Amino acid sequence: MNLRIPGPTPVPEDVLQASAAQMINHRGPEFKELIGRVTDGLKHVYATEEDVFILTCSGTGAMEATVVNMLSPGDHVLNVSIGVFGDRFAQISEAYGAKVTRLEFEWGTSADPDKVREVLNQNPDIYAVSVTHNETSTGVTNDLESIAAVVKGEFGKLLLVDGVSSVSSIPLLTDKWHCDVVATGSQKGWMAPPGLAFNSVSPEAWQAYEKATMPRFYFDFGKAKQYLKNGQNPWTPAVSVMYAMDAALEKILAEGMANVYERHASIAQMTRDGMKALGLELFTSAADASNTVTAIKVPEGVECAELVRRMRTEYQTVIAPGQGRLTPDIFRIGHMGYAREEDIKGLLDALADLLPKLGFKR
Amino acid sequence: MNLRIPGPTPVPEDVLQASAAQMINHRGPEFKELIGRVTDGLKHVYATEEDVFILTCSGTGAMEATVVNMLSPGDHVLNVSIGVFGDRFAQISEAYGAKVTRLEFEWGTSADPDKVREVLNQNPDIYAVSVTHNETSTGVTNDLESIAAVVKGEFGKLLLVDGVSSVSSIPLLTDKWHCDVVATGSQKGWMAPPGLAFNSVSPEAWQAYEKATMPRFYFDFGKAKQYLKNGQNPWTPAVSVMYAMDAALEKILAEGMANVYERHASIAQMTRDGMKALGLELFTSAADASNTVTAIKVPEGVECAELVRRMRTEYQTVIAPGQGRLTPDIFRIGHMGYAREEDIKGLLDALADLLPKLGFKR
Repeated sequence: MNLRIPGPTPVPEDVLQASAAQMINHRGPEFKELIGRVTDGLKHVYATEEDVFILTCSGTGAMEATVVNMLSPGDHVLNVSIGVFGDRFAQISEAYGAKVTRLEFEWGTSADPDKVREVLNQNPDIYAVSVTHNETSTGVTNDLESIAAVVKGEFGKLLLVDGVSSVSSIPLLTDKWHCDVVATGSQKGWMAPPGLAFNSVSPEAWQAYEKATMPRFYFDFGKAKQYLKNGQNPWTPAVSVMYAMDAALEKILAEGMANVYERHASIAQMTRDGMKALGLELFTSAADASNTVTAIKVPEGVECAELVRRMRTEYQTVIAPGQGRLTPDIFRIGHMGYAREEDIKGLLDALADLLPKLGFKR
Repeated sequence: MNLRIPGPTPVPEDVLQASAAQMINHRGPEFKELIGRVTDGLKHVYATEEDVFILTCSGTGAMEATVVNMLSPGDHVLNVSIGVFGDRFAQISEAYGAKVTRLEFEWGTSADPDKVREVLNQNPDIYAVSVTHNETSTGVTNDLESIAAVVKGEFGKLLLVDGVSSVSSIPLLTDKWHCDVVATGSQKGWMAPPGLAFNSVSPEAWQAYEKATMPRFYFDFGKAKQYLKNGQNPWTPAVSVMYAMDAALEKILAEGMANVYERHASIAQMTRDGMKALGLELFTSAADASNTVTAIKVPEGVECAELVRRMRTEYQTVIAPGQGRLTPDIFRIGHMGYAREEDIKGLLDALADLLPKLGFKR
């Protein structure tokens, strides 16, 4: 199968084999070395000198960890949303009793930092801003650097970032941009299976942690920090996925982050160019387009569910429909992590063959 | 290494290989078949016709899921504790604002159902009882059937069970004993790596769910139920561990639960007999002793940390010290899941060789 959804993403064969190693004591010296090495690798990719913790959960779990460690019920949060995952961040904060002001942008477009400034100016009691770096549901990358310059540089608010489909694939300079917490998951650009998620925590975030009163136990950053001092997780971690991350990080670090980002930019450009060459229309502008997931408008007369189904059954290629209210309107191609030119070429050839059969006329 | 801690436990080679299969779409038809098969297998092992959900987290996460889906802040919970994990259940409930009455029994002994009755009689406002089936920290199995007969049969209270180190190894008849929620984790008797956890949910538990107001998002049983109807998890699951569980459940179901329980009883008896033959004293009575983990008193003059360290470095055998206040006083042997007679024999031989070097005299 050519797995071209925005996660889980394909895992290189040697990483899969590394993940099949026998279990070890998660409180023993072998694990201590393993978690030390993986944490160091994560910090390098995150471009941070600060804390990064490893949780056993999905990216959504890492978002929830962000909320419950940073906020108290009643805290006013500005949630910047450009799609399903932006909305999810707001839902989590609301589930735990935060007061959320939603700043929403049309799906398929990126967030405007000037609007963020406007809302912050109008609401001096806002305590934190939550924002998606890369919106998986629409294939849009926000200009996080500019948003961070407003949120941190101009207002000094707490900045909580969903980096699930960006960290390790699209530049996110955690320390330089002053991101307080950045959440991501192992099944995205890391070339590893799902099961682990990661959170960076800045010194300012630790100050927020001390004040935050939302209930937490499993996701407690304080416990994670305490155990990491001894080379452990507080709770039994997904050891196999740790093995996979160790092997995958070795590849990523050997390649170098500049090359990794360039590879993602290049394969994304190839995907966008290929779609346009087929006569398809991209869902986003060139400026907003993500380098990890491309969203394409389902052409007139073609049914999205049918397109997805026949790509899988007739061309062994797995693509994703839209999410939420976009379900029938777009289809999405994941090209983060282990995505090779031949994979995208195969996908484009399959589309070229299938689309006319579904009634598509250029 | 002879990994003889009470989790993570060794995983059979073919299960490890199964876990190394390539990723699939967690919203596609292959995953739908996989989660259907694994859920059916789980229900068989749980001896339940009701719901069982798969979460990506550790056993502690499954305990937190139990609490947040069943309770509201202020609810009065009777927590029956016989060790570290019993205490943890109380800590989680308290972290989320429950009012917890702690009924504690001496570490190394089991809970007395008559005392449970007494506390329930004295506190008619108790809403739920949380209890550990098998206490990993002390090697004691509670008489859950008798406790359930009191909690459910006599008082009709909600019964929340930590079955982390019992389900799949020690008989726990979820429906017959009327357990409302039973939590467990993949790295215990299931012969799979850590990363997934499971919760059964009874019809009465669903009634409690409707009333429960503790905040929840990632661990929400309602979302799990809604997505499972379509053969999915709400969030991206640990796919590799799902593969492992699928392969391991095939072995467990082929063996049959009666045989699986008998195998655990037999290997546990061999462990206890072997320790006594070495002149060591067990931490628990024969009646209380667990069939998944054996706790042994560290003999006079021997230092626990040194024993654990040299077993690992000189005999390639990983054993566990005590936990919490028992850390230096006992050592613990895990024999749940994939534990063969030769593994226990090797461990006993190693102890026979090492103990005299550490100053042990029979």
